[in-house]
Formats: sequence, C-alpha cells, structure tokens
Amino acid sequence: MIAAENDKTVFQSFEERSDPGNVAPRLKALRAGMREAGLDAFLVPRADAHRGESVPASEARLAYLTGFTGSAGIAAVTARKAVLFVDSRYTLQAPAQTDTALISVEESPPARMADWLTRHIAKGGKVGYDAWLHTPGEIAALGEQLSGHASLVSCKNLVDAMWTDRPAPPDAPVNFLDDERAGRSVAAKLDDLRHVLADAGADAVVLTLPESICWLFNMRGRDVPNTPSVLGFAIVPRRGKPRLFLAPAKIDTETRAGIGEHATLRPTPKFAADLETLGKKGGHVWIDPATCPAAVAEILVQAGATLIERRDPVLLPKAKKNAAEIAGMREAHRIDGVAMARFLHWLDREAPKGQLTEIDIVARLEAIRRQANSLVDISFDTISGAGPDGAIIHYRVTDKTNRRLDPGELMLVDSGGQYLSGTTDITRTMATGPVGEEERDRFTRVLKGMIAISMARFPKGTSGAQIDVLARQFLWQAGIAYTHGTGHGVGAFLGVHEGPAGISPRYTVPLEEGMILSNEPGYYKPGAYGIRIENLLLVTQSEIGGGNYLEFETLTLAPIDTRLIDVAMLTADERDWLDTYHKRVREEIGPFLSGEDRKWLEQATRAI
Amino acid sequence: MIAAENDKTVFQSFEERSDPGNVAPRLKALRAGMREAGLDAFLVPRADAHRGESVPASEARLAYLTGFTGSAGIAAVTARKAVLFVDSRYTLQAPAQTDTALISVEESPPARMADWLTRHIAKGGKVGYDAWLHTPGEIAALGEQLSGHASLVSCKNLVDAMWTDRPAPPDAPVNFLDDERAGRSVAAKLDDLRHVLADAGADAVVLTLPESICWLFNMRGRDVPNTPSVLGFAIVPRRGKPRLFLAPAKIDTETRAGIGEHATLRPTPKFAADLETLGKKGGHVWIDPATCPAAVAEILVQAGATLIERRDPVLLPKAKKNAAEIAGMREAHRIDGVAMARFLHWLDREAPKGQLTEIDIVARLEAIRRQANSLVDISFDTISGAGPDGAIIHYRVTDKTNRRLDPGELMLVDSGGQYLSGTTDITRTMATGPVGEEERDRFTRVLKGMIAISMARFPKGTSGAQIDVLARQFLWQAGIAYTHGTGHGVGAFLGVHEGPAGISPRYTVPLEEGMILSNEPGYYKPGAYGIRIENLLLVTQSEIGGGNYLEFETLTLAPIDTRLIDVAMLTADERDWLDTYHKRVREEIGPFLSGEDRKWLEQATRAI
Repeated sequence: MIAAENDKTVFQSFEERSDPGNVAPRLKALRAGMREAGLDAFLVPRADAHRGESVPASEARLAYLTGFTGSAGIAAVTARKAVLFVDSRYTLQAPAQTDTALISVEESPPARMADWLTRHIAKGGKVGYDAWLHTPGEIAALGEQLSGHASLVSCKNLVDAMWTDRPAPPDAPVNFLDDERAGRSVAAKLDDLRHVLADAGADAVVLTLPESICWLFNMRGRDVPNTPSVLGFAIVPRRGKPRLFLAPAKIDTETRAGIGEHATLRPTPKFAADLETLGKKGGHVWIDPATCPAAVAEILVQAGATLIERRDPVLLPKAKKNAAEIAGMREAHRIDGVAMARFLHWLDREAPKGQLTEIDIVARLEAIRRQANSLVDISFDTISGAGPDGAIIHYRVTDKTNRRLDPGELMLVDSGGQYLSGTTDITRTMATGPVGEEERDRFTRVLKGMIAISMARFPKGTSGAQIDVLARQFLWQAGIAYTHGTGHGVGAFLGVHEGPAGISPRYTVPLEEGMILSNEPGYYKPGAYGIRIENLLLVTQSEIGGGNYLEFETLTLAPIDTRLIDVAMLTADERDWLDTYHKRVREEIGPFLSGEDRKWLEQATRAI
Repeated sequence: MIAAENDKTVFQSFEERSDPGNVAPRLKALRAGMREAGLDAFLVPRADAHRGESVPASEARLAYLTGFTGSAGIAAVTARKAVLFVDSRYTLQAPAQTDTALISVEESPPARMADWLTRHIAKGGKVGYDAWLHTPGEIAALGEQLSGHASLVSCKNLVDAMWTDRPAPPDAPVNFLDDERAGRSVAAKLDDLRHVLADAGADAVVLTLPESICWLFNMRGRDVPNTPSVLGFAIVPRRGKPRLFLAPAKIDTETRAGIGEHATLRPTPKFAADLETLGKKGGHVWIDPATCPAAVAEILVQAGATLIERRDPVLLPKAKKNAAEIAGMREAHRIDGVAMARFLHWLDREAPKGQLTEIDIVARLEAIRRQANSLVDISFDTISGAGPDGAIIHYRVTDKTNRRLDPGELMLVDSGGQYLSGTTDITRTMATGPVGEEERDRFTRVLKGMIAISMARFPKGTSGAQIDVLARQFLWQAGIAYTHGTGHGVGAFLGVHEGPAGISPRYTVPLEEGMILSNEPGYYKPGAYGIRIENLLLVTQSEIGGGNYLEFETLTLAPIDTRLIDVAMLTADERDWLDTYHKRVREEIGPFLSGEDRKWLEQATRAI
C-alpha cells in the first residue's frame, strides 16, 4: 500500500460511523475548560504520543471532539470558532463526518494552522497544547510562525479532562517471540543498542515508537488494528536495566515472565516521573526529535539532561531483517500468495457476471486470507477500487461509495495480511473483460517500471532516491506520471510502513542488505481507471560486483494479469523477467492449490 | 570534461614547470612575517577571491610558496613545519613540484587541516588567514574544529607582503557583447535582478564570481586561461546604480564606453571601502556564503549590514540560456563538430601506424580547432589518455608521462573550445585497432547510459539527481561503476563548468528549459583503459505531456566510434537513437567537410 506523504495512511473501514450531533456539546465543554485555563485556543491533533498510523479508542480525541475519523488531521478551537485541518485525502470525508456549521474544514497544505490562529485570536493570545501529542519540531515551527502574535502554552489536555466516558487504554495481552522466531535474542539486541549509544556518547535513549520497542523486546500485541504492536515507552540506559512502560493492565505474571530479566516493567503513568529522574542525572539522553513527544524533551531538559537529537537508533537494525525474519517473510508470502491466487481465480470467474461490488470483493479476499490459521489481522484496510474508484489513490470503499464492477472495467485491489510469520502488502490490477488500447499501454508502462526496479542492481551506499526514476521513466516518456512514492519499508510481522529507507526522492538513506521494500508504481486517470502493481522486495547481496553490489529478491508471489500487457512494448529482458517470475509463482504456490484453482494458476502464469 | 567533486579541475598544461629550490627562502621569509605578526601559523590556499577554476599569476600564492601548480590545495606553515593538503588528483604531482624535505604533502580527505594544526601548534596558538581567500563557511568550519586549541586570526596576507616580484593583476581588455549576441540587454538583466532582490527583501547584492558579473554586464575578457572572464567585483543595489570594480588598468575609455550608464566603474582597491559604506547604511545585503570571501561578510556585518545568505542570484538566470545564447551554442557546436570530424579522421588514419603520442594528439586537435577564426581559446587543457592513461580520470599528459599510443589501445580524448558564439566540451573514445570483447561490452554499457540520458523525458521540477541513475544502470548491472558525476552545467561563451544544476546525486536543483548540461558517463579500468562518451545537452520543453515535461536536445555533433559497440546489446530504441544522431551529424557537419574528411564522415556515421 502506498505510504502517504506524511507516512500516515487511512484506516477507515466502511462500517465506521460518527455522529456530528455530538460536536456542539463537546465544543461547549472544551471552551469552558479553555476559559478556566485562561487560554484563547486549544489544539487537538489526531496523533497520540506514539505517532502510529492507528490510535486506540482511548486516544481518539480528534474523533471524539469533531467526529472525523481519518488518520491525520488537527483541530483548533477558539472561544467562537473551530477549524479542522485535513490533507487532500480527507477533503470529502471530513465535512461529512463533522458539523460544518460549527467546525470549518480546511485543506492543509495549502492552508496553515498559524495563519488561521493569527486571524482568529487577538494579539498576545495564548494557544494551549498537550506536549505529549506534538513533536518538538512541530511545536518549534508553529511557535516561530506565531511569534509576535500569539504564544504556545504547554498545558494539561482539556479534552481528556472533559471526556467522562473515555475508553480505557488497550489491555490486550503482550506476546513474546522466542529467539528462534525473532532471529536475535533481546539480550543481543540490547547489547547492540548499547554499543550504538556508546558510540554516540549517549547515557540513555528514550524510545517512544511502539514498533521500535516491540522489535527490541521481541514482543507483539494487539493494541491497534492492523499492526501487531504494544503501545508503550522505554528508557534504555547505556549501563543498567532498561525500563519498559506499559498500561497497568498489561503488567501481569505472563508479561513479567516474558520480559524476564531484560527490563523493569513500569506502569505508563510513571513514565514522566522516571524521565525526570533520568534528566536529573545530568547525562546525555538520545531522543528522536521527529517522533518523540515534545513533553519528553521538555521534561528531560528541565531536569538537567543534555539532549542528543538523532533518528531512533532502533529503526535501522529493525529495517535490516535477520535470517529468521527473512525466512518468516518468505513463508508469509507463500501463504499470502496461495490466498491471492484463490482470490484472483474467484474474481476472474465472478467479475464477468457483472454482480460484484467493491465491498463483495473486500469481503471475499479477507475471508480467503482468514482461512490461513496464522493470519492475525489484515495489515491495512483493503483498497478495492472498481473502474474510476481505482483512480482515487487512497480510496477506501464505504457503503455510500460502494460501486458495482462493470465487466470491462479495471479492478485495483491493494491488500495485505499480518501473519505470525510476517507482513504482506500486494497490489494487483485485473482486467474483467475486453481491455482498451490505452489501458494496456498504461499498464505495460507501469509494469516495465515495476520490472526495472525488480531487476535493479546497485553499489552499496545507493539510496532509494537514486533508483526511484527507474520505475517512473516509462510513464514519463508518455508525458504521464504517478505522484506517490515508488516504495516504502515493510516490517517483519510489524508495521506495513516503516522507515528509514524507501524508494522515492525523499528517501536518501542507503539501501542495505535485509531491508524489505514495496515496489509499487501506478498510473491513475481521474474518473476513468487506476493501475498499480505492487510486489515486496528483499534487498540482497548480489553475486556480481565483488561483494559491493546489492539487488532485489521478489517476495510477493501472485500472478500479474497478462491480459493487460502489450507484449510488443516489452524488451526481451523484461519478458524473461515476467516469465521467470510467473514460473516461480507457479512452482511455489501451485503445490498448495488444487482443482480449478490450480488449473487457473497454470493458465495465469504461462509464458507470454 | 568531468567536474571534480569540488567543481575545481586540473588546468596543468604539459609545459608547466616549477622550481622546488625556491621553497626554502620563501618559507623563511614567510616565517619572519609570521613572527612579526605574532602568529603561530599562516594559511595559504590556492583559491583567490573569485573562486575560479584558474587563477591569474598575480594570485598564484600557493604556487609561489610551494611550487605546486594544481588547481586546488591549501598550505599551512608554522615556525618549524609546513604542510600542503591536496586532493586525490594531485598526490603524485604535488610531491614532484614542491620540496618535500620542507613541506609534507598530505591527501585531504582523509587528512584534515584542523588535525594537523592541532598537532603542530601549541594550545592557545594563533592561525592567521587572509579573509579574502576563504569563504565564511570554510572559516566557520575550521574555527569550530580548532576551538579549544587554537584561534583563527584574520590578518593581512603575509605572502603578498614578501612577494617582491609579484606580477600585476591581469590587464587584458574588457570586451562587450552587443544585445543581439547576448540575447538580453544589461538594462533588462539588471531589472530582472532588482526584482529578485525586492522579493528577497534585499537592498543590495554583492557579486564576487567573475562569470556572474560578466554575464550580468554582457562582457567577456581574457584574465585567466580557458574561461573568457573578467576578474572583478560588483555591488548591485535594489535602487541606484551598480558599482563594478575592476583592476585600475582596465578602466579606460573603451571600458567606460562599453559599460555606458549601466554601472559606475571603480578600481578594485576601493572595493573594501565601498563595502563598508554600503554596510553603514544598515540595510539587508545579499551574499552567497558558499562563494564570497569571508572578508566581504566581515566588512558588511562590522559596518552594520544584515546579511541575506543565499545562492548568487545570477547563477540561475545565467544557467537558463536565452534564444540568442542557444543559437550561439548551436553554432559553436557545428564549428566544433567540423573540427572534431577532421581530428577523428586524422586519428583514424595515423593511430594504426603506431607513432602517435598523447602530446601529438593534443597538439593536432588544438591546431585543428584553432583553424576556426572564432576560437578564442580551448575551454580546458585537453585530456589525452592512451590505453592505461585513459583510466586516470583527471589525467593531463606531461613530457614525463607522454605515452605512445599502441595500435589496439583505446584512446580517450576530452576537449573543448571557447568560440565567440559559445563553449564546447566533448569526449570521444576511439578504437585504434582490434578491440577486445570486454572493452566492447564496457563501451556499449557506457553508450547505453549516455543514450538513456539523451532520450530522457521528465516532468518539470525533476532534478539532475533524480535522472542520474539512467546513465549508471547498465554498468551497475555488470557490477561496475564510474565515480564521477554524470554531467555538469556549461556556460555560453563562459565557464565550461557552471552551476547550479547538473546530473549527479548532489545536484538537487530542478532542471529548467534552456539549461545546458554535459552527459558523460564513463568506465575506467585502472592500468588498462578508460572509456568516456560526452555530449552536451540543451534542456527543452517536450511536445509530449501538455507543456509540463522537459527533454534534451543534443548539441554536440561528432561521430561515436561504432567499432566499439556490441550492437546486440542495444535495444531497438537505442539503435534508432544512434542512427538518427549519426544521420544528423552527417547532415549538419558533412557540408563543411570535403574530400577524404567528408568520405570518412559518411562511413563513420552510417547506420549500424
């Protein structure tokens, strides 16, 4: 699935509901709180302290206040006005979910929070914010934009104060991976991390990203949909025992047994006090200013620590999968490939009948995936775009938008699974009847780009930014383009989007052996059709180039619809790649299929 | 010609000489000056205040002190020790030119000036520097690295003080281009620049790059070899008349007539005082911190100005050639193409006889180029690398290294001309006998990359960094690479290297219509052979893509040696490109050739 430009994505399932009728009383209560606190405005972002793609119900403050359930956005409330800023993905959804008589919805960019605040509060005004819900960089930037007009004031969260029926934090159990499955013991990972801290001259690091913490402590959870993470914080000192902060309900005998000697378990409400204690030691503390809450930095500095501001040190080792993680990802892709083959066969049979809707397709695919015992969850809400809906890049079907697939239309399905062995993310675009020449041309250009990335070989030190154009060049030749990244990092039974590497002009981090990336060029014709083809790739050392070159191994195993290809546009190398890929799909997936499914696969993967 | 990583290149001609015997007395005199000034060390960089690729004899302080004539380097002298830091291009040349008993030569990187100074002067020491010869960024970085050990002290230039027979500054006449040739009048260019200043809130800009000043005032000169620039400074206020600072000898009736009402001419020695006067007005003054002398920033700030630190505002409009400049560049390439065809024919005839040396080849090519009346100079010292010498990327033949070209060896020639109409830069690699399979494979991969850039089409906003991989991909597939940039900007009868755009991972400036860039992938096998193919390209609007796409028009017109191509490795599109290119070369250059030259061209450009 495409990573949104801010690496947040939409997790709106089609049964989601919200009630704009709640907006009036909640704004009123918030304004009462603001008066009491002496504030002229208060900020309510969608983010929680962990900056994840999903938030648990207990952290859904923006939805509670405004009704808007999208995955990114921020509201500001003054005594008389209220605004909700959303990005281009949500300009239709947000007005439908909130009460637009009380909250104006603006698209940002181009609109800016600072400009709105400057217009709607008097000079010298005070803007309150909860320092746990913003990064130091966000606060610094907004403060600078407001300077001379208004000031930012860190304060208690006024929404929490009025939220009487606030759900409890998630209490899902914590599961631990054994060393064989994790591929590296917690002790060894901590040892590696301590070396990184020593090299940086850091006395401790504060981790606030759940996926970093889960990877470090070989644990997984179910606190949010789609990503098997445990919400928590951690302090890892260079010397001494790490502290792991979890919701009190999670700290039980089983969790204690699982974490063993590796960390002291602490209830999350003690995190701030422990940060202060850490800060008072006056040492150097590593934080990631792009992701940690401003509160963490504020507490540490006020207590006397010196900050080392660098990227979360777990991101890179987490991205470079070890042998066990790679084996797990390969296994997950075999399981997912079998499900995809059965799904694609079903779609091929049913679509021409003209009865399928986008929701039917989502439901069927999810049902097939769930037949695998090891499926824990889908890895994101399926994108199921028939005909023109396929051209809406971040489309999620709802009851209202649900469209019947007309035979002849292109069908774009982007989906994935969280298996115990690993995470998948695959997009296929299917013909459902006779295909026009233009669609075939566009599909073939997308495919040529996808193949160019798949076949790429490059010296160590090369970044995703450098190879990105290989995927775009054939579309550019026709004067057309896609506006999203070509690929994002994917976790091993963790987040379907992860850093620090990816394939787009903004990913300048060198690609390294063991990283897993999506490869998903596309083309979207508004009002007509969308095309995307996505495989996951593993970065491997090349046998060519004396140990100094890297290349990709494709993990995803599912047929690419050859009816959409203009074979004359492919070079011999590209045809070879496709035939070899399909042969591999047939050989690795075929033995797990039977009857008509098997026959379908044979036909769908035959050489072109 | 490849741009060096620091955009400085070697201009050592083979007759250059230096006398290491001068080193001892000059070091002695400098040390006397240091004692008098109370300094523990003094820095002597190769750069002058204009940061050009060449310096005039009057600015060759590094060569005067050390004997080293390379195009980049810096010396430091203490009471007992002296060091010369050079980059990897000069690790052989520098020790040969200086007295290594008195001056140690170190390669930088990896060696660092700050480390050397820390080792060789006592704590609390003072390091003197001439603030006209270093940028603010260089001084800030070195100061930070030294902090706690030694301090930097801006002082008069101690080399100048002892240099009794110092040559006068260049007094070559200034020539002015008429508006037709320049394509835009000085008044119009100044008007454009004043709008840029207004947008930035700048009251004035200080220009210190001769090529910016020459372009702005439609003038050219002969102050340094290879680049038709006039050394000078300029202050352009948003309101009022610009001041143009030139060597006193240049300020004569003709120059006054040429510059007309566009600027007040001032002798260069008045520049510092005028900067101070400007600073005292207390306004906002735009400087380019990457290229201006630290002295400029120091004088302005001390006098009371606020600095706006941005890229020289002339660089971008200078890079985007206007219609007259483009027409001139096309003409220059026709003239140069005729010379190249005659040269290549001669080489083809003479090389198999086994008598040619690298110097013979340089001399012949330059003689042929000089037969064009409009040749002002060669645009850089020719790179003439036979066999293994071709693998030395920045090779310049000397009497000592001069090599006889053995038939069968590859011959790499990188050269260019400064014509009144424009600047050329071309590399061709030629077969001189039977060619091995490996050489043919490598040449074909280089050619495929060169063609991929030539055929590229891309949306507006795309940078050279984004398309760079198109040139490298075919070599990378074989596990091999070149380590230089793919392309650099080229001026219109100005510098053969210019910013701000180029094709390499470090050029993130968007390519724009009218920019002219080199396209010069290569492959170098140390001790064996070197391959490079270089054409200049003009960025043009594409007819495809609704006005939003750019593509390249090739300016260079000279045959590419088809005997070195493995035709089976080319795609149909690549073959078409090459045949179409050769047809164009034949049609545009052919009419200017006669007899055997014409026949040779017909055969060299026939379809493959």
